[in-house]
Amino acid sequence: MIWFTEYQTKNTGLTVKVRESKSFQSEYQEILLLDTYEYGKMLVLDGAVQTCERDEFIYHEMLAHPALLFHSSPERVLVIGGGDGGTVREVLKHSSVKEVNLCEIDRMVIEVSKEYLPSISSKLSDERVKIFVEDGNRFLDERKGYYDVILLDLSDPVGPAEALFKRNFYQKVEQALREGGIMAAQTESPFLQEEYFRTAVKEIRAVFKNSKTYLAFIPTYPAGMWSFTIASDSVDFSDIKDTNISRLNTKYLSDTILSSLFVLPKFVSDMIEE
Amino acid sequence: MIWFTEYQTKNTGLTVKVRESKSFQSEYQEILLLDTYEYGKMLVLDGAVQTCERDEFIYHEMLAHPALLFHSSPERVLVIGGGDGGTVREVLKHSSVKEVNLCEIDRMVIEVSKEYLPSISSKLSDERVKIFVEDGNRFLDERKGYYDVILLDLSDPVGPAEALFKRNFYQKVEQALREGGIMAAQTESPFLQEEYFRTAVKEIRAVFKNSKTYLAFIPTYPAGMWSFTIASDSVDFSDIKDTNISRLNTKYLSDTILSSLFVLPKFVSDMIEE
Repeated sequence: MIWFTEYQTKNTGLTVKVRESKSFQSEYQEILLLDTYEYGKMLVLDGAVQTCERDEFIYHEMLAHPALLFHSSPERVLVIGGGDGGTVREVLKHSSVKEVNLCEIDRMVIEVSKEYLPSISSKLSDERVKIFVEDGNRFLDERKGYYDVILLDLSDPVGPAEALFKRNFYQKVEQALREGGIMAAQTESPFLQEEYFRTAVKEIRAVFKNSKTYLAFIPTYPAGMWSFTIASDSVDFSDIKDTNISRLNTKYLSDTILSSLFVLPKFVSDMIEE
Repeated sequence: MIWFTEYQTKNTGLTVKVRESKSFQSEYQEILLLDTYEYGKMLVLDGAVQTCERDEFIYHEMLAHPALLFHSSPERVLVIGGGDGGTVREVLKHSSVKEVNLCEIDRMVIEVSKEYLPSISSKLSDERVKIFVEDGNRFLDERKGYYDVILLDLSDPVGPAEALFKRNFYQKVEQALREGGIMAAQTESPFLQEEYFRTAVKEIRAVFKNSKTYLAFIPTYPAGMWSFTIASDSVDFSDIKDTNISRLNTKYLSDTILSSLFVLPKFVSDMIEE
């Protein structure tokens, strides 16, 4: 019997029983593809679970849809990171979207996902999608005022994604948005990664005029409690334009989840207010 | 280095690093008291984490307060299970409460909690609290129309608590409530214990005229996604009487959490509607 444990901190982890495993070494990180009994196929980068078949819908729906729904008519979308393709798949459900750019630094993540995670990656071949195998930081230097929505689908702020949790990077994101633009980012677990969470939220708030944080239950992520932060210089997130979301065929997000999106447990809102 | 893994299902578990451990064998179950690095002291019954210092506030607040707040003036409260005392501690924050009965089958759970988990158990010695070391099923046979609020603070529906997840038991709970009475129960994880969850909710709905299910993030419980179900024959949960909850000194529950309490992810509400 093979067991894999992700040590989410030095002192606690998620343990899963594994049917089969494959490992790859890319230029940037170790890529593990596990076939687990409980969660289906699972993608692990440098020991950290990124996505798995059973609960990926929650992360990808909750990263992509709020930003797209708060925008009046998103046409140009950029996903940074997210080489597995799950976020792109959700973005393409919005009929206003004409162009999706995916900027992923590690080509091998895309290739492994295409081969082993087709239910997540299949929309990467959609004709509206253009893939750039580039460093997100450098990619944004060349894009000013172009996107309606930018989604930061990044791994933890250690390893390849470290520079993409910094103020300087959020400023480039802000500059790459056009009028009315919105960005959303995964901002770690407020429970088990409190410092990462606080820092990401603080830096985003320092850059954008408006920002809001929301949570979702993600069983395979640390503490099962995951945060996202949405931000904009023009949209204030007080009012959603489009609440008829049944057409998006979501399994987690609903009209009521959306209307109470920014309700946080007291200890989490206290962290943000401090 | 000592590590403990709770196998939450056959195929996945929570792994924690342990500083020190003590084990006890009671008449009913194996009781482990772990001193963990990440979560503080942790009480484990027959291999399943029941409560730990770091996140117990979430479970205890969310089991106790909604039922008490939906009641106009709760005076007599019964907790079944909950030998660690955390639920009793939260109940006693409500000044209308005059009498709290705790019915716990395993005296050793109470004793271990009193000795090793004082921040959770300390209010068990409050003068309004009366402890009955009895089987909850038999205890209720003698109580009809007495309580304003009954809280089912049970372990999983295997082992000692198995009979307390059945329709016959919920009927006894209903009969033990007086006019205006409300019960709340922990009803397992909709994600990793879907059958337990569906069954508990279905049985409660079959007995009570009104019922509602809500979730909370509990990092040390399966999937980090935990459910509670609140039920009553007279209260319909459409309107909360008392929303000034800052006096309860909670860390998870807030006025906004309370006002969106029954908002569920789509896949969870689908399970309930089916």
